[in-house]
Amino acid sequence: MAYNPQLNRNGELQHLLTIEGLPRAVLTRILDTAAPFTEVAEREVKKLPLLRGKSVFNLFFENSTRTRTTFEIAAKRLSADVFNLNISTSSTSKGETLLDTVDNLCAMQADMFVVRHASSGAPYLIAQHLAATGRDHIHVVNAGDGRHAHPTQGLLDMYTIRHYKGDFTKLTVAIVGDVLHSRVARSQIHALHTLGVPEVRVIAPKTLLPVEVSKMGVHVFHDMREGLRGVDVIMMLRLQNERMSGALLPSSQEYFKYFGLTQEKLALAKPDAIVMHPGPMNRGVEIDSAVADGGQAVILPQVTFGIAVRMAVMSLLTGQSA
Amino acid sequence: MAYNPQLNRNGELQHLLTIEGLPRAVLTRILDTAAPFTEVAEREVKKLPLLRGKSVFNLFFENSTRTRTTFEIAAKRLSADVFNLNISTSSTSKGETLLDTVDNLCAMQADMFVVRHASSGAPYLIAQHLAATGRDHIHVVNAGDGRHAHPTQGLLDMYTIRHYKGDFTKLTVAIVGDVLHSRVARSQIHALHTLGVPEVRVIAPKTLLPVEVSKMGVHVFHDMREGLRGVDVIMMLRLQNERMSGALLPSSQEYFKYFGLTQEKLALAKPDAIVMHPGPMNRGVEIDSAVADGGQAVILPQVTFGIAVRMAVMSLLTGQSA
Amino acid sequence: MAYNPQLNRNGELQHLLTIEGLPRAVLTRILDTAAPFTEVAEREVKKLPLLRGKSVFNLFFENSTRTRTTFEIAAKRLSADVFNLNISTSSTSKGETLLDTVDNLCAMQADMFVVRHASSGAPYLIAQHLAATGRDHIHVVNAGDGRHAHPTQGLLDMYTIRHYKGDFTKLTVAIVGDVLHSRVARSQIHALHTLGVPEVRVIAPKTLLPVEVSKMGVHVFHDMREGLRGVDVIMMLRLQNERMSGALLPSSQEYFKYFGLTQEKLALAKPDAIVMHPGPMNRGVEIDSAVADGGQAVILPQVTFGIAVRMAVMSLLTGQSA
Repeated sequence: MAYNPQLNRNGELQHLLTIEGLPRAVLTRILDTAAPFTEVAEREVKKLPLLRGKSVFNLFFENSTRTRTTFEIAAKRLSADVFNLNISTSSTSKGETLLDTVDNLCAMQADMFVVRHASSGAPYLIAQHLAATGRDHIHVVNAGDGRHAHPTQGLLDMYTIRHYKGDFTKLTVAIVGDVLHSRVARSQIHALHTLGVPEVRVIAPKTLLPVEVSKMGVHVFHDMREGLRGVDVIMMLRLQNERMSGALLPSSQEYFKYFGLTQEKLALAKPDAIVMHPGPMNRGVEIDSAVADGGQAVILPQVTFGIAVRMAVMSLLTGQSA
Repeated sequence: MAYNPQLNRNGELQHLLTIEGLPRAVLTRILDTAAPFTEVAEREVKKLPLLRGKSVFNLFFENSTRTRTTFEIAAKRLSADVFNLNISTSSTSKGETLLDTVDNLCAMQADMFVVRHASSGAPYLIAQHLAATGRDHIHVVNAGDGRHAHPTQGLLDMYTIRHYKGDFTKLTVAIVGDVLHSRVARSQIHALHTLGVPEVRVIAPKTLLPVEVSKMGVHVFHDMREGLRGVDVIMMLRLQNERMSGALLPSSQEYFKYFGLTQEKLALAKPDAIVMHPGPMNRGVEIDSAVADGGQAVILPQVTFGIAVRMAVMSLLTGQSA
Repeated sequence: MAYNPQLNRNGELQHLLTIEGLPRAVLTRILDTAAPFTEVAEREVKKLPLLRGKSVFNLFFENSTRTRTTFEIAAKRLSADVFNLNISTSSTSKGETLLDTVDNLCAMQADMFVVRHASSGAPYLIAQHLAATGRDHIHVVNAGDGRHAHPTQGLLDMYTIRHYKGDFTKLTVAIVGDVLHSRVARSQIHALHTLGVPEVRVIAPKTLLPVEVSKMGVHVFHDMREGLRGVDVIMMLRLQNERMSGALLPSSQEYFKYFGLTQEKLALAKPDAIVMHPGPMNRGVEIDSAVADGGQAVILPQVTFGIAVRMAVMSLLTGQSA
């Protein structure tokens, strides 16, 4: 395997930049570490002292209250000091470079950067810079790039599947929707393969599939009813608002008719199939409310597990565990 | 009494949505609980561990730094973890419904929502949804609706009156100003009646009085000098900037002349009458600076008591008390 | 010496409004207090309980994420509760005066205001008001006025010089750049004189020098090569973007040619001279990247010392020390 800036010399997690290229042992380690953190959240006092006195910087170059909040919750439950920086309107607009900003925060004794940036290169650039300047004690977590993908989303999806289905090696998983514009989808496919899922299906209209989809080791379906038949796990993708009109799609009603998950289509999957969605949902576009709020949906547990997974990543990065 | 979503089966506070309909015992319980919290604020270390490890979400659908800060102070002095969410520009703009946002935050183990929304229905809707989904351990506090009213304001007013005047049952209280556009006024009238105040007066120009004012059990005065004669408590209302010109009022100078509280008018009240104002004040419009900064004003103590009252509400809701 | 609102009757720091007029003993006391705080930042748990339960308000009337963050870090490392208030869009826009806002926050038991305002008068006004109303237990720190100067910047500069050079009384220090628009420069000159630096030089084009510069007890140079000869310390000033074009300067390229610090010009200073910059840097305008990232630059240590100095100021103001 090529140089992986995410792992240190001992093969342990140094940064979390992407789920791609993470070996099975590291993925499993993260999921195992997350498990006890799900219990913390149900205690009377939802706090552990693992990151006490550590400084976590939410470095958001684009606004995302939802994502920022999940990381802020995870960090505060680990007793870290959290600093929220919305940078679009600040230093960089004064002509300071991204790396000067990072250098300054390092000089303020940052321990971790949670980075959200319109360009997926930004977290890598920061990680590279930290390595080049010998600051191995500072860690980077990618909280999403311009396409609203982020590896902790992929990890919480894997946690959710393992929680409900146990053994990955016997599952058929279908990913449904706008694969073309979703890095989550690509990350999920990699993670599912790495964890041993034997059959991954992709269900989407031709206009929302990348050309190289056939090289990804997935079965491609353009008919949702065919694709859902007999699956254990359905992972819905969010349809970005900006895709809903224009050249790629006729209309959101039309999309719902063919690719929206309804109870009638869900009935084609295994009876105990679970339904996942990364949120926020477009009810009536990619998913029907009856399914979103139904007994097979595990969409809210995904959110709960997401906090635990982020706590796991943060504690692993700083060498602390519960 | 009809179903009151604010009280649980034992008649204890479940949510704080409005001061209206709260029984005297509950009102008194809140005021009693607040008393020791006023002393916390004067300690060297202004913190109590009552909400340690609890997650309080300031869910602000409209911006109000002032109000948000009072709740943030109260929550942090109780050692809660506080998360500030300005939602106008976030998830809901991605097409997520209010209740999906709430569901997500519940899945992140929220313990309390402090809700500010342009529509007064929002906190009720959230409370209903929590009840319908069996999440009785999560509490809602209304931090103000579109007319900038909020029940903790009413409660701190009652605390202030009790602090300075003791027995409610011997008082004459005058509410002065824009009753028409003020939900605070309505809440105050209800609370004053519930707590046993025998005479509540309303002083306002006809254009700033609701048509149903006569049904509220108050004495109406259009002449401020008449209305203030012999009162124990003067509760000034804030004149919203947007009312100052236009059809309802001739001008702010004119308003001040007839309904602005000056020392000369204040002299008509009892010598030991107290002057209250919810802030922020329009000096020279509804109140003269000499009165606002004078010896009978208790406007700053109101702010201090407001922190204690919010601490009391939060600790009662979560079942902790000092 | 005239009345100094920054010092109490015992000559101790009551507020930090400006570095000008602070006696040598007070400056030295701050620097001495900061020293142990630089070590806190390298501990596993970067926290001290000195301000536990204290309420620090970042009162920012103009936005500055960078500056706000440095004070937030300092306060949180001292275990204070920190409240960030961006006021431009809040209470004052509702017609409340600055002092009413301050009175309200005092009533919420504020212990310290960190004030950033476009007008340098604002922190003084607040300090005066606190004195006039007998609230000596509440402290004000000036976090910068409209020209982006702030005394903690001057103090961290002095800390940095002392750290690297020890004895102030043998140094030649050059301040380079836009002295005209920089209050930092004026503060630095005062502090350097107070601390006993025998030779302070100012290097700038004539258009960027104040007319009264000759009264400041400095040696003025318009030729950078002459001015840098034999100096121990080079303090670069930031060239504000808005100065780069227009009547005062021909162009940023031209400025760099004559007043940008390059390795070739740096070679004229003493071999062990240090290079300082308050950040954010305009690389290629006032400083060359090779110098900014070179072995003589102490620009990032300045940032680190800045946190320690702010911790020192906050702990001295509240009467706590490490």
